[in-house]
Amino acid sequence: MWYPEEFDVIVVGGGHAGTEAALAAARMGCATLLLTHNIETLGQMSCNPSIGGIGKGHLVREVDALGGAMALATDAAGIQFRILNSSKGPAVRATRAQADRLLYKAAIRQQLENQPNLTLFQQAVDDLLLDADASGARVAGAVTQTGIRFRARAVVLTAGTFLDGKIHIGLQNHPGGRAGDAPAQRLSARLKELQLPQGRLKTGTPPRLDGRSIDFSRCTEQPGDGMPGGANAERPLPVFSFMGQPAMHPAQLPCWITHTNERTHEIIRSGFDRSPMYTGQIEGVGPRYCPSVEDKIKRFAGKDSHQIFLEPEGLTTNEFYPNGISTSLPFDIQLELVRSIEGLERAHILRPGYAIEYDYFDPRALRSSFETRQIGGLFFAGQINGTTGYEEAAAQGLYAGLNAALQVRGQAAWLPGRDQAYLGVLVDDLVTQGVSEPYRMFTSRAEYRLQLREDNADLRLTEIGHRLGLVDEARWSVFCRKRDALARETERLKSTWVNPRTLSQPEAERVLGKAIEREYPLFELLRRPGVGYEALLSLEGGRWRPATGAEPDDPRPVVSRETLDDGYAAVVEQIEIAAQYAGYIERQRDEVERGAAYENLRLPADMDYHQVAALSIEVRQKLSAQRPETLGQAARISGVTPAAISLLLIHLKRSRGREFALPGSAP
Amino acid sequence: MWYPEEFDVIVVGGGHAGTEAALAAARMGCATLLLTHNIETLGQMSCNPSIGGIGKGHLVREVDALGGAMALATDAAGIQFRILNSSKGPAVRATRAQADRLLYKAAIRQQLENQPNLTLFQQAVDDLLLDADASGARVAGAVTQTGIRFRARAVVLTAGTFLDGKIHIGLQNHPGGRAGDAPAQRLSARLKELQLPQGRLKTGTPPRLDGRSIDFSRCTEQPGDGMPGGANAERPLPVFSFMGQPAMHPAQLPCWITHTNERTHEIIRSGFDRSPMYTGQIEGVGPRYCPSVEDKIKRFAGKDSHQIFLEPEGLTTNEFYPNGISTSLPFDIQLELVRSIEGLERAHILRPGYAIEYDYFDPRALRSSFETRQIGGLFFAGQINGTTGYEEAAAQGLYAGLNAALQVRGQAAWLPGRDQAYLGVLVDDLVTQGVSEPYRMFTSRAEYRLQLREDNADLRLTEIGHRLGLVDEARWSVFCRKRDALARETERLKSTWVNPRTLSQPEAERVLGKAIEREYPLFELLRRPGVGYEALLSLEGGRWRPATGAEPDDPRPVVSRETLDDGYAAVVEQIEIAAQYAGYIERQRDEVERGAAYENLRLPADMDYHQVAALSIEVRQKLSAQRPETLGQAARISGVTPAAISLLLIHLKRSRGREFALPGSAP
Repeated sequence: MWYPEEFDVIVVGGGHAGTEAALAAARMGCATLLLTHNIETLGQMSCNPSIGGIGKGHLVREVDALGGAMALATDAAGIQFRILNSSKGPAVRATRAQADRLLYKAAIRQQLENQPNLTLFQQAVDDLLLDADASGARVAGAVTQTGIRFRARAVVLTAGTFLDGKIHIGLQNHPGGRAGDAPAQRLSARLKELQLPQGRLKTGTPPRLDGRSIDFSRCTEQPGDGMPGGANAERPLPVFSFMGQPAMHPAQLPCWITHTNERTHEIIRSGFDRSPMYTGQIEGVGPRYCPSVEDKIKRFAGKDSHQIFLEPEGLTTNEFYPNGISTSLPFDIQLELVRSIEGLERAHILRPGYAIEYDYFDPRALRSSFETRQIGGLFFAGQINGTTGYEEAAAQGLYAGLNAALQVRGQAAWLPGRDQAYLGVLVDDLVTQGVSEPYRMFTSRAEYRLQLREDNADLRLTEIGHRLGLVDEARWSVFCRKRDALARETERLKSTWVNPRTLSQPEAERVLGKAIEREYPLFELLRRPGVGYEALLSLEGGRWRPATGAEPDDPRPVVSRETLDDGYAAVVEQIEIAAQYAGYIERQRDEVERGAAYENLRLPADMDYHQVAALSIEVRQKLSAQRPETLGQAARISGVTPAAISLLLIHLKRSRGREFALPGSAP
Repeated sequence: MWYPEEFDVIVVGGGHAGTEAALAAARMGCATLLLTHNIETLGQMSCNPSIGGIGKGHLVREVDALGGAMALATDAAGIQFRILNSSKGPAVRATRAQADRLLYKAAIRQQLENQPNLTLFQQAVDDLLLDADASGARVAGAVTQTGIRFRARAVVLTAGTFLDGKIHIGLQNHPGGRAGDAPAQRLSARLKELQLPQGRLKTGTPPRLDGRSIDFSRCTEQPGDGMPGGANAERPLPVFSFMGQPAMHPAQLPCWITHTNERTHEIIRSGFDRSPMYTGQIEGVGPRYCPSVEDKIKRFAGKDSHQIFLEPEGLTTNEFYPNGISTSLPFDIQLELVRSIEGLERAHILRPGYAIEYDYFDPRALRSSFETRQIGGLFFAGQINGTTGYEEAAAQGLYAGLNAALQVRGQAAWLPGRDQAYLGVLVDDLVTQGVSEPYRMFTSRAEYRLQLREDNADLRLTEIGHRLGLVDEARWSVFCRKRDALARETERLKSTWVNPRTLSQPEAERVLGKAIEREYPLFELLRRPGVGYEALLSLEGGRWRPATGAEPDDPRPVVSRETLDDGYAAVVEQIEIAAQYAGYIERQRDEVERGAAYENLRLPADMDYHQVAALSIEVRQKLSAQRPETLGQAARISGVTPAAISLLLIHLKRSRGREFALPGSAP
């Protein structure tokens, strides 16, 4: 039958990509339909019970800055929050949260159920409806398992690992979209008939453990930030969303750390002959940066121990996720290897680990908008594009959803630049480089990473989101208050000068470390190491000279806890980062641009890429294997990012000195 | 591989039967393994979001009295409670609750995860392990989808609708265990190879609606008991468990009532030619007492409207369950029929209604313990035995679990009598009569129903449960306090006499309605219509004479709100019921026993069974169709219960007078 109503956008799939896609299109005013094989599994975390991390956290904040669901759902479900790299520069600082699976799913489902313009319908999709127009094939809707035909002007396909999914445990395998769920076989077959360029990837998950059978006294406790014993125990708990509040979080739990040992590794090796990876049963390539434990043992044969995080799966369950031992080894090996680990000697496995193989489509066959080149109006997002990770999926979902909505509106696609967002890096990497293994985000993929920070995702994207219609009024007003306070205060700091003649030596030393020898604007003083905003404003006895045309002498800031409330700390942070990193950011931009000039720079034939510590292992391996002749060739190797090229250039400059002299620099 | 540990009992399936079976065996100290295809769906309510009702509520209270999970989970998840038939006699009074699906599932999972001796493992079961011993085939364990072999001394199979499940919507069908879940096809095939007597049944579920699209102003609100506008609005909310407290309940919600109309019926009839029921696509027989809406239109062609309850599915969802329009008509008809109903004119269907066909096994091939006759140690429980309903499943699960545990311990099975529990009626009906359609419990199935009440399920069963090891100490101590208070107070009321000479006429009239003409024990006065326990104890001026040997004159009861706290009302209720119904209960027992003597009583050839209003429609139809010659023959027709035979006898006695004179009564 034809469903009586027509939709603007249909989203197929209710995982992290599908939910963000559907919410985004609906927020933009499109009549949107989300088709899922099971309403109960909307927002399900199929693998690890955590969100964020370095690179991934950045994506989550960008999704949030564009009005997406993931960060707020994590704030509602997070049972442990940590700021990773908190002692490093702000560019690589990242938020990571453990989530209660049930609370996370409930938060996502509530957002979906209450989103205006969004309609949910439960039934597996078996086929797409196609029309032909002058410009070629065009999608016209989707057909469910029982033949219900839904018409739409655009379709976003977010099939995750379900397309012809095959689950492997040792040499046994069976069809499955995820443990406990049937795969999408008919849709896979239909997509193959459409002859979109397609391949197979694999991913995996560890066995899950019954917490009642774990001896935690033999593990090391890892509390979250803001928890007793954790980092910043005196500060409020971190939040993920720009709209988040610590009070949204449920009770907090620690994680636990243990390790594999030599015996664990022996057990794992003893299973190699029954590993679906090493016996050729699995054709698909797995994610290098989220390797199975057998892969780690094989690739890092010299290492005699690997860390395992025992992550709680929620507040109301005893289940634990042992992060670090993803495996598709036979179940007997899984059991033995788990029980060889300290603290897990009597551990009971509740669910076996497994690998899953699934169809993906070559993202180079996508336009930059994520619309397929072959079929107009058909967008792909998430694992179907060859990525891995909830956050990568969510970012793509949002992106495909908003571009589908723009197309329906007859507007041009929004294409974020690589210097604008990790989302831009992700999209550009995928559509220009393709993937040879599941693609995961890292800060090293971003050449402009000093400016692509978690802390300024809103400043980079919320105005755009608002213009696109993705951002609601509540978020917009919070954002505007922050943006305006930041602009006014930055201007004030830049135009307010401190006079050395009236500043006492002790006071200058207390706040600035030493006396000032001339007049400085406040903003410039803020650049000095160790000088923070609050300390600077406490400076007494300086004579304040506002720049011409500014308000009369008034050192009182427009930024205060009273006027900005919860937004105060974020504004101060932005002011400090702007002052302290502006120079670096400028320099990075110059370097990236100059790097583009090195297309024809020849690389030494005997170059040992493994010595270039700054490069990722992936890039080092690829360069070693392919040995490009020029930097331009290197840049076109799939997986070798512009960021890697910059790093390579810096390395060459340092190690070979003048022979790689830069144009424009002295000979 | 062989799993290294051996179990006493394996339970296959995590629905209502499986969870009670696993919990029961584990409570009895057996090393128990619950195998489920998906831990996330443990305790899932596949159909209506409600528990209890007449006959069904009785089973829930019996399961609770034996330490089971269902009633407590309902108390934790119930968003509306009602006492049905509250104006009728206590035998047919029953509790019914709407449950929040997510809270219910969470409560069950928490009970399972924290039950000592119980191990969970996620993987579909594909096969059973069989041994042969001197007495024939014997089960030795179960084999999962990936070949993990779990050894056990007994196996309880609770496969629900999953065995070769086939989902029908109109003339479309596809394999499925439930919407969104894959069926168990390999296990079905293996069980067929074992040649257990097997057949197909079907059941169905209505489309689910988005509450945002319902116009509740056109529906009638139905609040729960203890809610504003509901029955007993001034009293505390009802509870399901003997251990329940109103404070356990989450927020309460109303249901809503609307109706089908003539246009709805026309739409339904217009889909008959594409109904899988009426075109022969479905072979399995459906539940007569939970018919699809198309069945109702067909069978009750004269009725121009049927009631529909719009039941909320939970506190955090907008989803509604329209109870009364279960259907497997094509989706276009579903949509049209829903939108023809008042208040649903713009309703959006979130999930289509469907019918599901599945394998069941003839329960006449079970021993009374629910062990299969053919394969030692293999027990069946739930829908696999041809029943329908969560409560019937839970009761059977508990029963099969406890008998599996008894067998493992080398003890004889526990077989409850028909006069002891609805569980006894259920078991006896199934193993002696078999089923020709999904079996559902009704109070009419119990010939001893005056004594099988919800209110006394604990008094009937908790001592047995404690002896079997099913009842924990907390429940046992609550029970003992109630039982002892009841016994002491009953004895006191029986042995304390009121003297008419000292009781003033006005006081006698106030409490008893009229003066007493002789000395009465308090217990006997309590039999008088309109005389309640509290009123009786307020009687002033009567002279109390304790029976010989009793304590000195003291009208003070041992039952008081102070000593019994929450248990007070239940004890008073038992005392009143015992006093008021003892005579009826005696008489019912005599009648049933005398009825057994009527084996050879001939039935009139022209008997019009449709005139016997007390009989269920099912029994009337069966008797009309088969026209038995004697009462004994009638009793052996499947579905004609001993209770029906009693009713038939009473009818004959009344309508034909002397010609059916009872033995022992005057001519």
